[in-house]
Amino acid sequence: MKALVYGGSKSVQLQDKPIPEISSPTDAIVKVTKTTICGTDLHIRKGDVVTCQPGRILGHEGVGIVQKAGASVSHFKEGDRVLISCISSCATCEYCRRGMSSHCTSGGWILGNTIDGTQAEYVRIPHADSSLHAIPEGTDEASLVMLSDIFPTGLECGVLNGKVQPGGTVAVVGSGPVGLAAIITAQMYSPSQIIAIDTDPNRLDVAKKLGATEIINGSLNDAVAKVKTLTEGKGADSVIEAVGIPATFELCQSLLAPGAVLANVGVHGTKVDLHLQNLWDKNIAITTRLVDTTTTPMLLKLVQSGKLQPSQLITHRFKLADMEMAYATFGEASKHGALKVLIDID
Amino acid sequence: MKALVYGGSKSVQLQDKPIPEISSPTDAIVKVTKTTICGTDLHIRKGDVVTCQPGRILGHEGVGIVQKAGASVSHFKEGDRVLISCISSCATCEYCRRGMSSHCTSGGWILGNTIDGTQAEYVRIPHADSSLHAIPEGTDEASLVMLSDIFPTGLECGVLNGKVQPGGTVAVVGSGPVGLAAIITAQMYSPSQIIAIDTDPNRLDVAKKLGATEIINGSLNDAVAKVKTLTEGKGADSVIEAVGIPATFELCQSLLAPGAVLANVGVHGTKVDLHLQNLWDKNIAITTRLVDTTTTPMLLKLVQSGKLQPSQLITHRFKLADMEMAYATFGEASKHGALKVLIDID
Amino acid sequence: MKALVYGGSKSVQLQDKPIPEISSPTDAIVKVTKTTICGTDLHIRKGDVVTCQPGRILGHEGVGIVQKAGASVSHFKEGDRVLISCISSCATCEYCRRGMSSHCTSGGWILGNTIDGTQAEYVRIPHADSSLHAIPEGTDEASLVMLSDIFPTGLECGVLNGKVQPGGTVAVVGSGPVGLAAIITAQMYSPSQIIAIDTDPNRLDVAKKLGATEIINGSLNDAVAKVKTLTEGKGADSVIEAVGIPATFELCQSLLAPGAVLANVGVHGTKVDLHLQNLWDKNIAITTRLVDTTTTPMLLKLVQSGKLQPSQLITHRFKLADMEMAYATFGEASKHGALKVLIDID
Amino acid sequence: MKALVYGGSKSVQLQDKPIPEISSPTDAIVKVTKTTICGTDLHIRKGDVVTCQPGRILGHEGVGIVQKAGASVSHFKEGDRVLISCISSCATCEYCRRGMSSHCTSGGWILGNTIDGTQAEYVRIPHADSSLHAIPEGTDEASLVMLSDIFPTGLECGVLNGKVQPGGTVAVVGSGPVGLAAIITAQMYSPSQIIAIDTDPNRLDVAKKLGATEIINGSLNDAVAKVKTLTEGKGADSVIEAVGIPATFELCQSLLAPGAVLANVGVHGTKVDLHLQNLWDKNIAITTRLVDTTTTPMLLKLVQSGKLQPSQLITHRFKLADMEMAYATFGEASKHGALKVLIDID
Repeated sequence: MKALVYGGSKSVQLQDKPIPEISSPTDAIVKVTKTTICGTDLHIRKGDVVTCQPGRILGHEGVGIVQKAGASVSHFKEGDRVLISCISSCATCEYCRRGMSSHCTSGGWILGNTIDGTQAEYVRIPHADSSLHAIPEGTDEASLVMLSDIFPTGLECGVLNGKVQPGGTVAVVGSGPVGLAAIITAQMYSPSQIIAIDTDPNRLDVAKKLGATEIINGSLNDAVAKVKTLTEGKGADSVIEAVGIPATFELCQSLLAPGAVLANVGVHGTKVDLHLQNLWDKNIAITTRLVDTTTTPMLLKLVQSGKLQPSQLITHRFKLADMEMAYATFGEASKHGALKVLIDID
Repeated sequence: MKALVYGGSKSVQLQDKPIPEISSPTDAIVKVTKTTICGTDLHIRKGDVVTCQPGRILGHEGVGIVQKAGASVSHFKEGDRVLISCISSCATCEYCRRGMSSHCTSGGWILGNTIDGTQAEYVRIPHADSSLHAIPEGTDEASLVMLSDIFPTGLECGVLNGKVQPGGTVAVVGSGPVGLAAIITAQMYSPSQIIAIDTDPNRLDVAKKLGATEIINGSLNDAVAKVKTLTEGKGADSVIEAVGIPATFELCQSLLAPGAVLANVGVHGTKVDLHLQNLWDKNIAITTRLVDTTTTPMLLKLVQSGKLQPSQLITHRFKLADMEMAYATFGEASKHGALKVLIDID
Repeated sequence: MKALVYGGSKSVQLQDKPIPEISSPTDAIVKVTKTTICGTDLHIRKGDVVTCQPGRILGHEGVGIVQKAGASVSHFKEGDRVLISCISSCATCEYCRRGMSSHCTSGGWILGNTIDGTQAEYVRIPHADSSLHAIPEGTDEASLVMLSDIFPTGLECGVLNGKVQPGGTVAVVGSGPVGLAAIITAQMYSPSQIIAIDTDPNRLDVAKKLGATEIINGSLNDAVAKVKTLTEGKGADSVIEAVGIPATFELCQSLLAPGAVLANVGVHGTKVDLHLQNLWDKNIAITTRLVDTTTTPMLLKLVQSGKLQPSQLITHRFKLADMEMAYATFGEASKHGALKVLIDID
Repeated sequence: MKALVYGGSKSVQLQDKPIPEISSPTDAIVKVTKTTICGTDLHIRKGDVVTCQPGRILGHEGVGIVQKAGASVSHFKEGDRVLISCISSCATCEYCRRGMSSHCTSGGWILGNTIDGTQAEYVRIPHADSSLHAIPEGTDEASLVMLSDIFPTGLECGVLNGKVQPGGTVAVVGSGPVGLAAIITAQMYSPSQIIAIDTDPNRLDVAKKLGATEIINGSLNDAVAKVKTLTEGKGADSVIEAVGIPATFELCQSLLAPGAVLANVGVHGTKVDLHLQNLWDKNIAITTRLVDTTTTPMLLKLVQSGKLQPSQLITHRFKLADMEMAYATFGEASKHGALKVLIDID
């Protein structure tokens, strides 16, 4: 089969690889029909993710068709159309029982990281019963690829951790795909304001279209002052960090109303300053989370009922044969106005 | 009347002052019968609290008897025995409605700070209906002085923010009065382990007597390694910071299990390092809070039913006339083995 | 002034009454500009509400302008435009502290019941600071009359008690004004289905327009069977009873999915059968509540931001002079296609 | 092997039966070392449980040693000492994901009901990874048999559903084994009062020893009046029904304070009256639940740390050979002063 392989030295190539086999009775082999590229895949290509070694097939998002199910897989059989979760979950370890599948002792984020992933014609999915989701009849499968990772990430790490509530005010720092997923899913809880902050005017335009009630270009404005003005001087109730660098985390701390939550979504590579001298008595919380994908069933219902249209984030489509070009495009997302790129395999 | 007054220049003196008068129909004048000294009073004496100006009568803790109630005070009348909350709450502003009386727009921590306090024979209590609590018949009043501030602080900022739960593991960094109040109130939620960490062996002995299941002397041991050993390598589910300096906040970050909460109780005067590069995917929360005293009614019931004995923290007793000596003793708490000092006024 | 007075013997009349005076420093006198009639007012007229005696000015909903504020009212002053809550709250008793203002020991539902109400040119509001809400600039005041009672009732007793959640299924039995308010406010939490059940085809049409995704005419269909079909045989996650008779409560019990909540909103005059033999192992909850109006600030923000249009429920408008006709119309709501009738006083 | 078999016609007999075999890769065969008899087993013997047919080996509680583990069992291997949960959970169906294993689509309460159970030398446990729990070193195994069913039932259906809280008041109607388990586990949340109500003075004495702060003999006293007296006229915050007949459910409704929860634990065979005419505006909740055993890991930690001693409920011990006598004794529990009977098999 064809597969996109991490070659080390900042390279990825489309290669021929053997079709994967069932190796445990809880596995399923899925014929991948659509996949996408995540910001994390670019981090791997750069060599930033030490757990991912050269030779690995990348990708942790996708939809497909079950080609073979292991002997103890009970919820799926050959021919079932399935959504692949970016998190593999055994469902039975201490962390899975507590809803923290991201810390599953035999799973977590392993696809396209420590085991071969979804940017290929076939993929082996461990713990299939709890790592796949049946696709409801008639749902747009391109939309569902957004539910493998980015929508649960925006929702769980951003919106739910951030305790977005009806009537509340939300500030989202960063309007990349994950920030936009947070902006979209925040609306499930009816805040009165969603303020998007970024430095790229195109992304801010998209944020506005997707539901931000206010946009602030942080390179042209004093974002703190503008947020204060928009919130009667208080700051935002929910502040979502969707970038992952010290400067944006610093900004987020300045946007917090008393009683607010700073929900960190960004992947950070270095320590940051925490201004406890200002925050110790402010009744705030700062949260971190790797997505657990516990909300995927809920998101599937909302897509099925038409209340969510995740395909709004798809800006480019490629064939598997053009996968290297897809990486090139997504790798310079800003230049190409790219949000999410969809890869059609079938 | 006699009152303990902040004189500026690191001094406090017992002075003659006029008895306070009702200035708003929601005020009450309380004859103080017992009070105590808080760590914050020492901070004021040092000049660290800019909101508190020389000439101020200090103190935000105490019990007493209502001497006069304003025209619109409905829950209290002359002669009622009352517990004074360290937080004055209007009960009606946005923050009070949300249970954040610490941020009350016409209250919060004002007693002994921006208005005259309780280290005096009489004190004026604004918003009396929501800032005083009736003392149940037959309760030990010395015990109740601990409910003005320290017990709600340990419980709200430490135990509740820290989500202490049955069967969980709790690490408390700092065994001063507030850390000990957290250790005592944590037991209301039946954790399986309470690990006290301090560098003072006397305080650790007290921690053990008051319910810590393990004690770690951080100056003799690698506290991180010991906590990991005690928790099957995971770290603690609830980590309570009860010191307020960068080194202890740093330690707390290293004690967090996946999914844990770091509940900050300490008063911090400077920024700290936050190791987001390690924590971004660990599903943790860091919380801060100024006590809101919303749990005082619950604590009163537990004292009344005999399930809490807050007087365990009282190590020294003084008369109001000896107030300056009380400050001297509490100011060198470690030397004197002091936890809380009780001041009898009547 | 003119006021609508309950005369006993199933009658109400517009009468001349003295303008009310401040009787406690926490009172405010409000010049009423708009009010409405509640189903409860009809119950009073029928003689069903024993706490309300002849001679009483009716009405517990309305907006107006503060004419005079008592000495200890701090949040409002003469000339302020205000929303009147149907629940008077002292903010300081045990129940108010716990968010149960409906059981306030010196308030609760007293307006137009045990003290004179809002269907008059002026009304005295006790505990003004916690029973009035400032009207934001530029908000449609007719809309806000719906926030005195019916919207918080639908939201608190129906939607919040019913734990309506994103992706969940909601069945609302009864499409009168309160049921419709539940249907509208349920959408704040993005359920995937809202199923309205009634026997009046006009009301079902309105339900559909206001957001029901499915409507079932219970007199033409087997509502239980239809709900099961719509929910893959499970029943609804949230079942809201908005009628108040044994037959509808019986129906609601049959609509419950495992793990569901039956949120009772209806006012019941008699006992009902509870089928514990079917429900004891079904992990369900049944809730009751008198509205506490704790959600009014949140609802105000949503109206202000344009996310809620409560005036959708207003079908008829009258002048105060025509108040008796307004009662006649609302008393035969079905015949007149009436939902809520608005009374303009100014 | 020897096994206790339901014979129909109100009989149970000890019989020879074949040792069970693995039938699915997720099964484990457990050599049972200790088991007990549940009230439900008596219901089966009476013929009340239609799902359980003659020929069935009874029993859904026990501890033992894994004799053989299926190919996809990953957490247990031969020789592991295990606690058997009364609920079999696949961990992956919709209900298990939501923490409602009692409604597992391929599990739930099946042991000793629709498949052979634990009152035998060996038992087959389906979904072993999520239906067994490792026994911590050095724990008293007799204690742990109480964790198969009765302790999670008292805790989940009674204490957690009943929202028992620090400082709250709890009334437990029924002091049989489940009521006593509720009384013991309620103390994990530090209520200020636990009021036990029963008509058997011996059981009330036990309730008092196990932590009830007050006991009321309902056949000698007006239980409603006494509870009101003990709670300042309000009623209890948490009312736990642990009997299962209309009379006790009726009593429970009269004990509810405003804002209280009535947590039903009893198994009901008939409908009951619900007095909505009194309760509709009282802000109460009524809950039902079949135990989900989601709290077993927490309970294991508390037993391990010495904070819970579930063996307090064991009054009699038998050998497997005397199983019929054990049924006779437990069947007339009151006469024999029996609470739980322990069966030693090894």
